[in-house]
Amino acid sequence: MNQIERVAIVGGNHGNELTGVHLVKMFQQYPNLINRSSFETLALLGNLKAIEAGKRYIDKDLNRCFTNQGLQNPQLSSYEDTRAKAILQILQPQNQPSVDVIVDLHSTTANMGLSLIFCDLHPFLLRLGAYLSSINPMVKIFINQESREGGFLRSLCELGFVIEVGAVAQNILNAELFHQTEQLIYAILDYFEGCNQGNIPQINSTLTLTLYQYIGTIDYPRSDRGEIQAMIHPQLQFRDYQPLNPGDPMFVTFEGKDIFYEGASTVYPIFINEAAYYEKGIAMYLTQKQQQVV
Amino acid sequence: MNQIERVAIVGGNHGNELTGVHLVKMFQQYPNLINRSSFETLALLGNLKAIEAGKRYIDKDLNRCFTNQGLQNPQLSSYEDTRAKAILQILQPQNQPSVDVIVDLHSTTANMGLSLIFCDLHPFLLRLGAYLSSINPMVKIFINQESREGGFLRSLCELGFVIEVGAVAQNILNAELFHQTEQLIYAILDYFEGCNQGNIPQINSTLTLTLYQYIGTIDYPRSDRGEIQAMIHPQLQFRDYQPLNPGDPMFVTFEGKDIFYEGASTVYPIFINEAAYYEKGIAMYLTQKQQQVV
Repeated sequence: MNQIERVAIVGGNHGNELTGVHLVKMFQQYPNLINRSSFETLALLGNLKAIEAGKRYIDKDLNRCFTNQGLQNPQLSSYEDTRAKAILQILQPQNQPSVDVIVDLHSTTANMGLSLIFCDLHPFLLRLGAYLSSINPMVKIFINQESREGGFLRSLCELGFVIEVGAVAQNILNAELFHQTEQLIYAILDYFEGCNQGNIPQINSTLTLTLYQYIGTIDYPRSDRGEIQAMIHPQLQFRDYQPLNPGDPMFVTFEGKDIFYEGASTVYPIFINEAAYYEKGIAMYLTQKQQQVV
Repeated sequence: MNQIERVAIVGGNHGNELTGVHLVKMFQQYPNLINRSSFETLALLGNLKAIEAGKRYIDKDLNRCFTNQGLQNPQLSSYEDTRAKAILQILQPQNQPSVDVIVDLHSTTANMGLSLIFCDLHPFLLRLGAYLSSINPMVKIFINQESREGGFLRSLCELGFVIEVGAVAQNILNAELFHQTEQLIYAILDYFEGCNQGNIPQINSTLTLTLYQYIGTIDYPRSDRGEIQAMIHPQLQFRDYQPLNPGDPMFVTFEGKDIFYEGASTVYPIFINEAAYYEKGIAMYLTQKQQQVV
């Protein structure tokens, strides 16, 4: 691993996720909070117009606009397409070094605690994840290899990842989650500082890290016209990262009928009842839990 | 009290409050659920365009458009002004009897359980509230006499009131709150049926009803430019209807400094951290708790 020279912390990639917005605004006001001696840290707001409007996005989801194809297509001129190109220019300026790390701050109405979302099993990120979850059991690691191709901001660099905190409603701040996220960011920056200085924070060398690997997504039951016909079952609501066994209740219809999980094996749902995913046809992600020695 | 002849149940007065939207859609699909023998029940969606868009409103808050002045002003032509006039025409048609009761369904990111909001101390509503809170301790009664003048839908008739349920994020459904709200609506309709038939559901005749009376609102601490500088304190978050004593922490700044309640007496905050109230300059409502014999 080479030295980490530049780290970007991005908030407000979605304009109605206020935790990241206000963390970045605070970091911009007090840069000492994120300055470390061995690397540069940049704090950047993502979707400026959507932040102003208190919406996830204006025309389209900014965090799906970072595809190579989209970024290289001058025809795409929506606000988010334009902003994605501007962000690329800031993070990967021409004739200057790119950022080495992107920390993309998000929040969710699902009860995901302090989740880290990685695009793959990069050994450096896994060690970081193992360290962070060893100092804070609220930290969970979700690996979504599908997301490499999805136009996500984090896919712009090898060490790009998301911090996803919840449960918190859109357009509000939860002080406890705000300060927990803040402390997590400092732990990440301190870890990079340690790595750069040859003092990698030590964890138990036989530590097995718990990972949640993407399997797929599940939609709400819908009518022919696409209207949802059921809600997340009360026994599943807020139970992100907990086992869902074949036969467990998954949804309940408006009329009160239970709908059960009919898969063949136990899965671990996350992003359960995320507000922004109703329109994407996602009631939850399913993951499998696995242990990995790091 | 005369007979109740017509009851209107309105959902989606705010388009991103899905509990009411989907309850009304279900009642429209299965009218038997809300039909009672002694009166007519109408289930009505409020802000149709905002429901479609998943937003609170399109141009302005529909639930502030029901002022006499606004309803009589043909110059006002925003979507919400137009829709308010159309709703008035449905609820109070010319040359036909008006509805006697409006039940306006709302949800909030504050932890308000099943709250009833009344415009005044109308004896019929107080008895209804006493009955409902006697069968379900989650039911709380908030009296907001200021709201008579605020252009709220509920102010269109003497027996207009709000059911405000939470905590639930905007644009999601919480199955438990959905079904609790549904049961509360049936209890209300059954109560009206009993009254019409001379069988008013009996409660302990010496019952004292707990009421929360409006005192005022508190804004977030803000900068000169209007940006919020603090969040609801973790010790106050989700503690709606619980006592806030002089000297108790109320807010915490982004930098972590506590801000204390400096009032002279104990108050009972509600609507704590409601997402839609950030733009209205309201961090919470303050109420005083009082007992009333009904």
